[in-house]
Amino acid sequence: MKLDSDRNIRLDISYDGTDFQGWQIQKEDRTVQGELGKALAKLHGHPVNLTGSGRTDSGVHASGQVANFYSDHKSIPSEKFREALNSHLPKDIRVMESRQVSHKFHSRFDAHSRVYKYYIMNGAVCPAHQRNFCYYTHPALDLRRLNQLASPLTGVHDFTSFAAVKDKNENKVRYIYSARFLREGPFIVFRIAGNAFLWRMVRTLVGTLLLLDLEKAGPEKIKKIMEGKNRLLAGPSLPAKGLFFHKVLYESETTIY
Amino acid sequence: MKLDSDRNIRLDISYDGTDFQGWQIQKEDRTVQGELGKALAKLHGHPVNLTGSGRTDSGVHASGQVANFYSDHKSIPSEKFREALNSHLPKDIRVMESRQVSHKFHSRFDAHSRVYKYYIMNGAVCPAHQRNFCYYTHPALDLRRLNQLASPLTGVHDFTSFAAVKDKNENKVRYIYSARFLREGPFIVFRIAGNAFLWRMVRTLVGTLLLLDLEKAGPEKIKKIMEGKNRLLAGPSLPAKGLFFHKVLYESETTIY
Repeated sequence: MKLDSDRNIRLDISYDGTDFQGWQIQKEDRTVQGELGKALAKLHGHPVNLTGSGRTDSGVHASGQVANFYSDHKSIPSEKFREALNSHLPKDIRVMESRQVSHKFHSRFDAHSRVYKYYIMNGAVCPAHQRNFCYYTHPALDLRRLNQLASPLTGVHDFTSFAAVKDKNENKVRYIYSARFLREGPFIVFRIAGNAFLWRMVRTLVGTLLLLDLEKAGPEKIKKIMEGKNRLLAGPSLPAKGLFFHKVLYESETTIY
Repeated sequence: MKLDSDRNIRLDISYDGTDFQGWQIQKEDRTVQGELGKALAKLHGHPVNLTGSGRTDSGVHASGQVANFYSDHKSIPSEKFREALNSHLPKDIRVMESRQVSHKFHSRFDAHSRVYKYYIMNGAVCPAHQRNFCYYTHPALDLRRLNQLASPLTGVHDFTSFAAVKDKNENKVRYIYSARFLREGPFIVFRIAGNAFLWRMVRTLVGTLLLLDLEKAGPEKIKKIMEGKNRLLAGPSLPAKGLFFHKVLYESETTIY
């Protein structure tokens, strides 16, 4: 089989964010992009630029991060980059799938939707093997009220009130496609899909919704917080460990085969 | 509230077995019983004897281990031992619940049924955050055939063929109440309930069943292996990391309240 001399390879990636200083490569710190970069350089014999669909913060996990890179490797078939990379990667990063995609595919710019999930253990203690992957809260949550509170989030809104103060995006308007609470096994999960998210936005949204649920507030309260465009109006950001970057959706099927 | 001077306290315990040399206390190694013993001694100011419902091997996890101890503590309410112990325990052990039970309750002798689950990821890579909690196998498993293969296990049988050669139990007859494969999220799970289990028995059973599935064998093959009473007839023991001690069942409700 003759391989393209400049294949565009898409990676679907999972990571346990516990021991990473987030996605983005940094000089000193251990990051997911940094570790992937090292593994790609080993396979290629030279540095390889890797583009991710979005950054995640320190401690945040991913089950469906997507990234792409252009490869001049002469012998590794596209779908075998999975095994080849996994054999060079630390165990807390796993490439779930690798495949060749159109040359035009860009994992960040082509993404039209990103989905996050926040895992909450309500009442019962988080079991030991899930201690790094969920947030424990004692007071009983009201799923119906939480979903009423979350309903005004869908649509196009300015999310300034829910962004970290240090977020440098000038435009803080985002399009939220859906935001709801559901049960998943022993967890209550806050699942949110949007075109893109501001810094700490998901963790601040869920922290605010949980607080408003305890206060037995109504959905008009969330509207007011959004309209105020002030971080001080919102509730606390919940810990990173409960958050998973769940998946990325693209406009069209980009697989070549 | 006046507390009994010699309360019998039941603990429901979860642990991530990855960094433990199993349940049973040992002089040198880090064990679950050892860590619980240290935490109990700190709370009581003297050593406290802790009885577990059953041992687990190095690397095996538990979501529903049960243990009990007699406490002369003057001030901690029974249900608060959970918090008190968790604050002294390493994060890979979590007490899920604590409560006072009848003086006669014995977590090991009173258990009439123990349930184990073995988690298998078939085909797809184990996601990074579940890497220590499931076993990956590539060839496609046939759930229907696996359940046919497992069906002769139920009932009273001599499980010599599935015990570690070093198992010192003279009597290797055990009563299996149920043994079946089912889907749980992205996993195939082997769930087995029995009165008690021999050393490595669950991991050898599931290893043998997976092998026989690949060989397209029928359930008569399992019967022959049992009848042979020889470890060499069975398949490999699968890795500890896929195995969870799921729960223990007792004859009657033993809670005092």
